[in-house]
Amino acid sequence: MSDQEKPRPALPADALSLPAEYYLDEARHATELERLFLGRWFYAGREAEIPDRGDYTLREIGDESLILTRGDDGRIRAFFNVCRHRGTRLCEEPAGTFAGAIRCPYHAWAYDLAGRLLGAPGMDRSPHFRAEDYPLVEARADDWDGHVFLNFAADPPPLAEQLGDLVARFRPWRMAELKLAHRIVYDVAANWKLIVQNYSECLHCPGVHPALQRLSHFLSGENAPPTDSYLGGAMDLRDGIETLSVDGRLVGEVVPGLQGEDLRRVHYYAVLPNLLLSLHPDYLMTHRLRPRGLGRTEIVCEWHFRPESTEAPGFDPRAAVDFWDLTNRQDWHVCEQMQLGLRSRAYRPGPYSPREDLLHAFDKLVRGAE
Amino acid sequence: MSDQEKPRPALPADALSLPAEYYLDEARHATELERLFLGRWFYAGREAEIPDRGDYTLREIGDESLILTRGDDGRIRAFFNVCRHRGTRLCEEPAGTFAGAIRCPYHAWAYDLAGRLLGAPGMDRSPHFRAEDYPLVEARADDWDGHVFLNFAADPPPLAEQLGDLVARFRPWRMAELKLAHRIVYDVAANWKLIVQNYSECLHCPGVHPALQRLSHFLSGENAPPTDSYLGGAMDLRDGIETLSVDGRLVGEVVPGLQGEDLRRVHYYAVLPNLLLSLHPDYLMTHRLRPRGLGRTEIVCEWHFRPESTEAPGFDPRAAVDFWDLTNRQDWHVCEQMQLGLRSRAYRPGPYSPREDLLHAFDKLVRGAE
Amino acid sequence: MSDQEKPRPALPADALSLPAEYYLDEARHATELERLFLGRWFYAGREAEIPDRGDYTLREIGDESLILTRGDDGRIRAFFNVCRHRGTRLCEEPAGTFAGAIRCPYHAWAYDLAGRLLGAPGMDRSPHFRAEDYPLVEARADDWDGHVFLNFAADPPPLAEQLGDLVARFRPWRMAELKLAHRIVYDVAANWKLIVQNYSECLHCPGVHPALQRLSHFLSGENAPPTDSYLGGAMDLRDGIETLSVDGRLVGEVVPGLQGEDLRRVHYYAVLPNLLLSLHPDYLMTHRLRPRGLGRTEIVCEWHFRPESTEAPGFDPRAAVDFWDLTNRQDWHVCEQMQLGLRSRAYRPGPYSPREDLLHAFDKLVRGAE
Repeated sequence: MSDQEKPRPALPADALSLPAEYYLDEARHATELERLFLGRWFYAGREAEIPDRGDYTLREIGDESLILTRGDDGRIRAFFNVCRHRGTRLCEEPAGTFAGAIRCPYHAWAYDLAGRLLGAPGMDRSPHFRAEDYPLVEARADDWDGHVFLNFAADPPPLAEQLGDLVARFRPWRMAELKLAHRIVYDVAANWKLIVQNYSECLHCPGVHPALQRLSHFLSGENAPPTDSYLGGAMDLRDGIETLSVDGRLVGEVVPGLQGEDLRRVHYYAVLPNLLLSLHPDYLMTHRLRPRGLGRTEIVCEWHFRPESTEAPGFDPRAAVDFWDLTNRQDWHVCEQMQLGLRSRAYRPGPYSPREDLLHAFDKLVRGAE
Repeated sequence: MSDQEKPRPALPADALSLPAEYYLDEARHATELERLFLGRWFYAGREAEIPDRGDYTLREIGDESLILTRGDDGRIRAFFNVCRHRGTRLCEEPAGTFAGAIRCPYHAWAYDLAGRLLGAPGMDRSPHFRAEDYPLVEARADDWDGHVFLNFAADPPPLAEQLGDLVARFRPWRMAELKLAHRIVYDVAANWKLIVQNYSECLHCPGVHPALQRLSHFLSGENAPPTDSYLGGAMDLRDGIETLSVDGRLVGEVVPGLQGEDLRRVHYYAVLPNLLLSLHPDYLMTHRLRPRGLGRTEIVCEWHFRPESTEAPGFDPRAAVDFWDLTNRQDWHVCEQMQLGLRSRAYRPGPYSPREDLLHAFDKLVRGAE
Repeated sequence: MSDQEKPRPALPADALSLPAEYYLDEARHATELERLFLGRWFYAGREAEIPDRGDYTLREIGDESLILTRGDDGRIRAFFNVCRHRGTRLCEEPAGTFAGAIRCPYHAWAYDLAGRLLGAPGMDRSPHFRAEDYPLVEARADDWDGHVFLNFAADPPPLAEQLGDLVARFRPWRMAELKLAHRIVYDVAANWKLIVQNYSECLHCPGVHPALQRLSHFLSGENAPPTDSYLGGAMDLRDGIETLSVDGRLVGEVVPGLQGEDLRRVHYYAVLPNLLLSLHPDYLMTHRLRPRGLGRTEIVCEWHFRPESTEAPGFDPRAAVDFWDLTNRQDWHVCEQMQLGLRSRAYRPGPYSPREDLLHAFDKLVRGAE
């Protein structure tokens, strides 16, 4: 046993990977999208993308396009990108600023930033028509420390309830203060669950990620008890390593106030369903997952640093970006090979090792959502 | 109210756009294609495309390819492009002239221009075989003033019956005499009904077509009572405007004999299911719609002028073509945005204004075809 | 009647081509793949592709990827390309040599060349886990004179039983000794059965293959009685023609010991389901068919010659390759035109001539597999 190993108990004999239909069946995928994504709070990006009133950004999920915009009251709202007249998409540009109203390009129906219908050309002589019956349809939006989440349910519990103890646990990282330094968008030919599972174990690290293994020993990982809302844990940095970067040196300023072992570890949390949160002493990396179909996932990866760093002349996040871009690509590749293999009649659920305990917990959650 | 406005009565409270499944459901699309297209007379192009005996042109509709050809008797016939031997497509080139027979490229079965089997190599010693049992399968063809229509029904009523008063109404334009001056083929990511609906109202014109609005005021439109065969009306040209062209000047010779307000208006008729007929004082524009799937339509747009114009040295149709090409692209764009929006769970049928009265009539026809 | 004609008896009146659904229905295609391909011995390539221990090549069929590899005992085995841990594809490179073990790229599970699990990182402390429960899943492999066949059935009869009298019939060609001289891979937009049917009659030859017709008269063909395992026959070379090549001259050394009329004919056998075997006096051509979907087939065409030829300085197979490449392309083209035609409502089964007798036999086999 490595002296860095933190051993884990064996799993029960029925701790097996999911049956193939969880990755191959269209109808099951549609149900899963409703129950595990849209019917709960899912991650939609950072508040800082729309800092000012009237700013907006579009988000796609399933067949839906949503307009995230900041109202005159400073609140962020999410509207389905659909005119109440005949259903035309209201916005096309992926981001921008509304000049006062949200106006349909087809017949010029206009809405204010709270979604109220302001004008509907041609309807003035229709006796049955009342503008207040035709506001934009809204999805719930809520935020956590700079992160925006959405929920399609009619009357969902607050986001904080879903997040549970995560809110307190990560308060020391002061995530709302961090600034975007870089973004890479990946298009991966694998089911979204394979990405979550890949993120939730490091048993594959020695073979798949030799560079990571040099900075952080895979057996040093220790997990928090999994919940329905997150799967996560931490791994220690090796002696002399300051953060995950090409050379193991710090890339940005350390988060002020961070102390103790948090300066010597990286925390990895899959905030279900679709935010992978990686907290380093000097930066936050987020992966936002968007299923583009049964076997295809868009992954938006962002690197966020302290403002003292991003505003410093000559700041260069490349040592963190390059390290993780390599690691990401290694991961997506094995996920794609697994997606291909699952199509075979020879696949049958195989045994999880104790190092794959979080996957066993995740799979139970997935099965429960049927 | 604009002094050009011709007001219209309000529609009933249930005058709402169609439910989304009319644009999203594959099975419904297949039914619609049978009932609204193939089981009635649909537009297939101009007689002038195959002026001489043996000339042919191919037409695609749904999964079908049809050979339109002119026989030795001068008649136009439409044959399914399928050999009676083993089903091979007989013709590949989109247009041409048959040298006597229609010959299958596979085993050389040969048919005359009336579809009779002339020769079937290898069948001479088959006692059960009779050549007269294997003519080409024919679709009905009929014509109206230079326009060819097809019908897949076994024994349909004559085309003139379907067209009703259109035949008399547009006789003054002498359409059969007009010559093709230009053709543009568009591939549009929208259901064919969205194109018909878009053509049938000008409520969107001020916002979508500022150039058109400068030539012809959208409130000047006046519709004929809609029938099961067509939806249409006319819009006035503004003072000093002679036709729809880039500069509002005539592009070709005015149709001889045309008089009165027909010299001051443009007539727009959706001849159902798939011919959009736009009659200007000096030219005819036709749009031929072909559904390529639930959410995709091919649109063949042609500009036809008097022979005195097309044969005149230096004749240039560009001022009409460019004006309408711009207008077309503006229309296809909003139709595509509407097709995208209809996929959303937030879409629900919205209210038609009095200016969308023809759409309400069209939708009733569509619903009736279920 | 040509003096070369070998006449054939008429077929019964119900000898008609197959109904369209055999070429257009996805569910039927899936069943056919199971019953006519995977549940019998199907052709997978030549033994010579993996001459040494540890050599492997991948083969795709339907959704399956298979690893063909030669074991330490010299035997060829076929493993489904699927790790028993979580289902990842084990190999990606289409061919290569294993360095001792077959190792999964994800978590490094390792198997020996007989498929036994050698190591499973992380499983050592799982009390329920026994490595012998997780060998690679194997498909049956067998060989015939240098040709490798696979079978997905659990306990199939030997390959020789399926081949019947073919084994003895083609022994004089000493096929195992022949060497690959050239390979062309075609991607054809037609159902695999259309390729088999096309290969099984030469009624189309005069029109489609004028060059072939100059070397070998289509009416000279004589068929062996068809069986459930093969359809085939021979055609005579014309006087003065030595083989099928651009100029009719021999391209390689004649197979030693070949005698009599085998020096004056070409044998064509469709070894069902997917090997087309064309035996010339001086070379063997093989077509390996792989359905890529209902209406798409990959065809790997290979030319095999005597080692005395392939090893001779300056040997050039081009005259055989070019002749057949032209002929192949002519065939694929009419097959694609037939696939298109079959989609039409105007298609109905048409009459086979006596020259299409093998197709009638093949179709009966296909119908019987429903």
